Amino acid sequence: MPPIDTPVRLQAVAGPGQPDVTPALEQLYRDFESELLIPLWTEIGDLMPAHPRSRATPHVWRWSALQHLAEQAGALVPVGRGGERRAIALANPSLGGRPFATPTLWAAIQYLLPGEDAPEHRHTQHAFRFVVEGSGVWTVVGGDAVPMNRGDFLPQAGWAWHAHHNATSAPMAWIDGLDIPLQYTSESQFFEFGRDRISAAERGTPERSRAERLWAHPGLLPVGVTHTSPGSPLLAYRWEYTDRALTEQLALEQSGFAGTVEPGHAAVRFTNPVDGRDVLPTIRAEFHRITRGTETAPVRATGSSVYQVFDGSGTVTVGDTTWTVARGDLFVVPSWVPFAARSEAGADDSDSGALDLFRFSDSPVFEALRLDRTDLHGRESA
Amino acid sequence: MPPIDTPVRLQAVAGPGQPDVTPALEQLYRDFESELLIPLWTEIGDLMPAHPRSRATPHVWRWSALQHLAEQAGALVPVGRGGERRAIALANPSLGGRPFATPTLWAAIQYLLPGEDAPEHRHTQHAFRFVVEGSGVWTVVGGDAVPMNRGDFLPQAGWAWHAHHNATSAPMAWIDGLDIPLQYTSESQFFEFGRDRISAAERGTPERSRAERLWAHPGLLPVGVTHTSPGSPLLAYRWEYTDRALTEQLALEQSGFAGTVEPGHAAVRFTNPVDGRDVLPTIRAEFHRITRGTETAPVRATGSSVYQVFDGSGTVTVGDTTWTVARGDLFVVPSWVPFAARSEAGADDSDSGALDLFRFSDSPVFEALRLDRTDLHGRESA
Amino acid sequence: MPPIDTPVRLQAVAGPGQPDVTPALEQLYRDFESELLIPLWTEIGDLMPAHPRSRATPHVWRWSALQHLAEQAGALVPVGRGGERRAIALANPSLGGRPFATPTLWAAIQYLLPGEDAPEHRHTQHAFRFVVEGSGVWTVVGGDAVPMNRGDFLPQAGWAWHAHHNATSAPMAWIDGLDIPLQYTSESQFFEFGRDRISAAERGTPERSRAERLWAHPGLLPVGVTHTSPGSPLLAYRWEYTDRALTEQLALEQSGFAGTVEPGHAAVRFTNPVDGRDVLPTIRAEFHRITRGTETAPVRATGSSVYQVFDGSGTVTVGDTTWTVARGDLFVVPSWVPFAARSEAGADDSDSGALDLFRFSDSPVFEALRLDRTDLHGRESA
Amino acid sequence: MPPIDTPVRLQAVAGPGQPDVTPALEQLYRDFESELLIPLWTEIGDLMPAHPRSRATPHVWRWSALQHLAEQAGALVPVGRGGERRAIALANPSLGGRPFATPTLWAAIQYLLPGEDAPEHRHTQHAFRFVVEGSGVWTVVGGDAVPMNRGDFLPQAGWAWHAHHNATSAPMAWIDGLDIPLQYTSESQFFEFGRDRISAAERGTPERSRAERLWAHPGLLPVGVTHTSPGSPLLAYRWEYTDRALTEQLALEQSGFAGTVEPGHAAVRFTNPVDGRDVLPTIRAEFHRITRGTETAPVRATGSSVYQVFDGSGTVTVGDTTWTVARGDLFVVPSWVPFAARSEAGADDSDSGALDLFRFSDSPVFEALRLDRTDLHGRESA
Repeated sequence: MPPIDTPVRLQAVAGPGQPDVTPALEQLYRDFESELLIPLWTEIGDLMPAHPRSRATPHVWRWSALQHLAEQAGALVPVGRGGERRAIALANPSLGGRPFATPTLWAAIQYLLPGEDAPEHRHTQHAFRFVVEGSGVWTVVGGDAVPMNRGDFLPQAGWAWHAHHNATSAPMAWIDGLDIPLQYTSESQFFEFGRDRISAAERGTPERSRAERLWAHPGLLPVGVTHTSPGSPLLAYRWEYTDRALTEQLALEQSGFAGTVEPGHAAVRFTNPVDGRDVLPTIRAEFHRITRGTETAPVRATGSSVYQVFDGSGTVTVGDTTWTVARGDLFVVPSWVPFAARSEAGADDSDSGALDLFRFSDSPVFEALRLDRTDLHGRESA
Repeated sequence: MPPIDTPVRLQAVAGPGQPDVTPALEQLYRDFESELLIPLWTEIGDLMPAHPRSRATPHVWRWSALQHLAEQAGALVPVGRGGERRAIALANPSLGGRPFATPTLWAAIQYLLPGEDAPEHRHTQHAFRFVVEGSGVWTVVGGDAVPMNRGDFLPQAGWAWHAHHNATSAPMAWIDGLDIPLQYTSESQFFEFGRDRISAAERGTPERSRAERLWAHPGLLPVGVTHTSPGSPLLAYRWEYTDRALTEQLALEQSGFAGTVEPGHAAVRFTNPVDGRDVLPTIRAEFHRITRGTETAPVRATGSSVYQVFDGSGTVTVGDTTWTVARGDLFVVPSWVPFAARSEAGADDSDSGALDLFRFSDSPVFEALRLDRTDLHGRESA
Repeated sequence: MPPIDTPVRLQAVAGPGQPDVTPALEQLYRDFESELLIPLWTEIGDLMPAHPRSRATPHVWRWSALQHLAEQAGALVPVGRGGERRAIALANPSLGGRPFATPTLWAAIQYLLPGEDAPEHRHTQHAFRFVVEGSGVWTVVGGDAVPMNRGDFLPQAGWAWHAHHNATSAPMAWIDGLDIPLQYTSESQFFEFGRDRISAAERGTPERSRAERLWAHPGLLPVGVTHTSPGSPLLAYRWEYTDRALTEQLALEQSGFAGTVEPGHAAVRFTNPVDGRDVLPTIRAEFHRITRGTETAPVRATGSSVYQVFDGSGTVTVGDTTWTVARGDLFVVPSWVPFAARSEAGADDSDSGALDLFRFSDSPVFEALRLDRTDLHGRESA
Repeated sequence: MPPIDTPVRLQAVAGPGQPDVTPALEQLYRDFESELLIPLWTEIGDLMPAHPRSRATPHVWRWSALQHLAEQAGALVPVGRGGERRAIALANPSLGGRPFATPTLWAAIQYLLPGEDAPEHRHTQHAFRFVVEGSGVWTVVGGDAVPMNRGDFLPQAGWAWHAHHNATSAPMAWIDGLDIPLQYTSESQFFEFGRDRISAAERGTPERSRAERLWAHPGLLPVGVTHTSPGSPLLAYRWEYTDRALTEQLALEQSGFAGTVEPGHAAVRFTNPVDGRDVLPTIRAEFHRITRGTETAPVRATGSSVYQVFDGSGTVTVGDTTWTVARGDLFVVPSWVPFAARSEAGADDSDSGALDLFRFSDSPVFEALRLDRTDLHGRESA
């Protein structure tokens, strides 16, 4: 989107605190326009609302539709240098027809055919992959081949070289999350092409990445390795551990001990083991499990989130809208819009399990800038 | 600007890495549109450029024009509840006709007539005032009346109650800087009306604010007062100190000692005495003095700045554009656009002094998110 | 040790920078004594050496002797209120006959008979337990019963209530590490008695503590629980994970990748998952594995360490002293004394394994106060 | 003090929790002794008291006596390489006859004759100078000559080269404060000799140091200079500013506004302008002003302090001891001993002023290690 010289257009309006609309005022406004000036008094209601009113709209994208179109793209669209990735992004209906799920977050389905390689590049945008189903692709980050399987969360900090390759005979789809809109708005992004083809060794198919072998031991850090760059050195957070952590929280709750967010609602945050902070400097990632029959208390906060249903079924309420959701569905919660979820059996649902939700948000940005505010179950905290 | 449901419109294009344009592809793009999806491969050049390409344009606003229009507004526009402030903002020519000097920064001239009061309110947006000439207005922050005089920098952290009153018989103009575009984009802003009229005591005209009496002693902090909110508790940084600090840097340089940024170029940063960090969480403010005949080395960095010429004259170069500037002129430096300044006598300039530049920027945002990168005299650092 | 009014005794000496010894000087020194004054010029060599010269002496305590005496104590010494614990501490031979392993660290063997309980108390001293062999005791920290088994590291932050109970039919011994000398010197210690007997529920024998169930998932933190007190919320670091982490580091090294401290020398640090920092504010704890035949490069650093041989055999060199060591042996490395270890088969050693060393030190104290300095393989860093 | 091999001597005692004194127990204790072991159960009362019981004793040193003996030393003791400084340290009566004012702090009077130079050296011990009366000496820190005058506080961070020279025709005395006992105990100290004679340029007598010219502007930091070492880059905190800050606090209090510690008690802390933290990593320095007739509320805290009376007169109470104090007197407040001060006219006191107290303490150490606890006016906070 190249810069466009947009003319300033001012319109005199009536209202409290507004000047009388006279020919002199009209002339003043014309003079403002020619000098590229805009008064506060006509704009303040939009610029300085009593509380955030997001330009984004709550919206849901259905997994079946995403999958279907990704398959179509697989048949029609190559993966190679220039286009770089077969990724298809969610475009919030009220963000200008741009590929932005929220004002700060990008969410896309990416699709790779058997044997395909996505070429190496790097960018300052922080990224992760999350796998709702399937397997067979290895993402190669800094030369380290990382397998991707259902339930895994795979962060990749900005400016790390990365490529992907499908080492199996089946196509695979997954979700990419990035801070593209944030860096687009802040104008901080850099990008470089890497090698067109990674080495044979990097195209191996290990069961665990080297990153996991070094960094995925609870509470243990290697003494001989220093990690100072932003973002976690741990390149995969496996479903096995996430599932166990959630299961344990609920079991502890059953025994009368603290651990969950609220009754029937367990949650873990993916963190950087080096400092315990968010896994990426601009993106928070969490996993929430809501037991069958539980409804979470409504929460609203500054900042936006994207959720993907990992398992189970139920309803989610974002502001005034309620959807029935099932595996793979993605939806957005804009800034300061209340959110609640209820776990319940779907129409064709035979399982008795919980509603499992993967969530990512821009909360670290708001906390770093001290712009975070939360209205928790009606009690506001700043 | 209410949310607008913007349709997604995709256009198949030819190019490296792009799919062949076939009827099937056209159909796929139509399906993407109806599902609110946008491919990465058509957008990557815009979203992920090799380096930041700002939507903002370098531009200069002349002080004489601003002053003239502010006076006109003084005659036509009331100051009162609803409109809140007689402030007129710079609108960058390529930021959509919005009152945004840069993608993150607001800069406006504010004007108050003799005896006028601007009513009390508060907002999460961080703000400051800077006085290029004149005096007579007291800004009342949290009940503390703070005089404003030429050269003074007056920060006011988010969510602090504030009003202004002109206690003299002359009008006064000054510059407001805020992070309105940043908070508009991040959707974190809250606003509340305060009292329509502040008390008689608050409308006093002390020579120094209480804040200065507590916090403006070099290296000394009060033991009995805890300040934890974001932003500096010091509400005025007086010209006397700024001028002296710059003079001393240049004198030290003359004696062969370090202190300046580069030969002939002194600079100080306004900081929070409680933690030595930037005076506001989202805004950096600095004062630069460039001695006559000196040209600064070009620098480019992620993030944007607004400069106001405080004194002297010279030329400034922003990217490919060079302007001759004089007292009061304001100009913007967009992200990653090189900037240099040269101090030289103006056409009608009889003084032999330096070019004094006030600068504010969004650097703290980039540093907090670890998105800062600087290309300093050709050597890049990240 | 109650304060003792110690008279000041000064002795005139000859040497560079010393005053001539005259009757007048002798009189001056007598006057200094009566006014409780001591000159720098006679003391500077002791007070301000060119580099640290520790009062502590390198020393080794043999596990067989410790075990034997602990058993004896089991027969003769009760465990109960007043004496509190059947713990027997290492007394460095040159630290004044005090129970201080080093100037900052306490190390003791603790011994509990079948069915015995150590009563509940709390103190500001930070503590941990480490198990070189045996099992059967649960330490109950904040009401959470934590099993103790060979290889486990169990931290317990200051001011946490804790008791121990032996739930089996065999006695058990383990190692306690605390910062008693540091807090004794800094005069910061508080202590409170708790309940004489913990509840039946707390005397359960779970396989895993509640703390582990919440906090021992790699890179995952519970969203619903805030932990702000100093020290790790994770109350047990299990041998299974430690062993695996060390094994993986060496396997990565074998494959040509970074991960170890130096060739053949793997090490992990026990860290607080909440912030990635040391597990206790004043104590660092690490596990080192040195493969058979490897000799580590000599290192010296400010601060002191206590090591316990966990497995294998070899020699360790502390300054000018070299000992052959085996399982359970404890030894101290004083400040700025070079340390190196060599893994080799013992006299009666039939295993082919590595030398496994558990280490704890006061490094976090030095780093917090910016007094850390390391001389690493001859290259000094500050 | 070289290490001394101190034998372990154990004595069986009777009491709660103690074993029966039998021949077998006596034998066990003999065996402990020969193995360098000491039981906890006999030592716990000393090692783990209910609250800190300092080994230090409250004590006062009179300025007249210090001055007199410093003058005597001036006549008898040279200043030169080897002895390094004509400094005479306070020796707390119950700290073993060592030159330690408290377990962590060194305080000494230093004395320099007209024309004398103290040779250059550096050490890791953090230091400051405080001038209760006189002038004429310049301390030369890192080649920067810093004048010393009544009321000035002059910090000098560890490992900075420094010398002193008396450029006048009168002798001068001042107070040195260092963390010598802390670094002696922690065994972290390094020391190096510098040049025997500093250059002629460094022996100049500027009115202000270069450090002040760069760093002593309230809230302003130089953009072109990075200061990362521990300790403040500002080498002098002038009395003019300290006095004004205290005067303003009391004036604000008079007008009904917050600012003082408590009614009639103003205080400022000397801080590092780079980060707002304590001026030295291990030493806190403050100035307290207590108006005539005011008595401060008793406070006790972990850590120790040394006070010097700068002006006025009154009484100070440390634990159970109360002294009448006057200008120059020094006294110590040990850990967890309550302290209060009362400002009142002395016997021969004609002034109507306040009691001005300079204080330094080891509080940053306790805060960094999270060992700080304060009992403030009876309300304890941790």
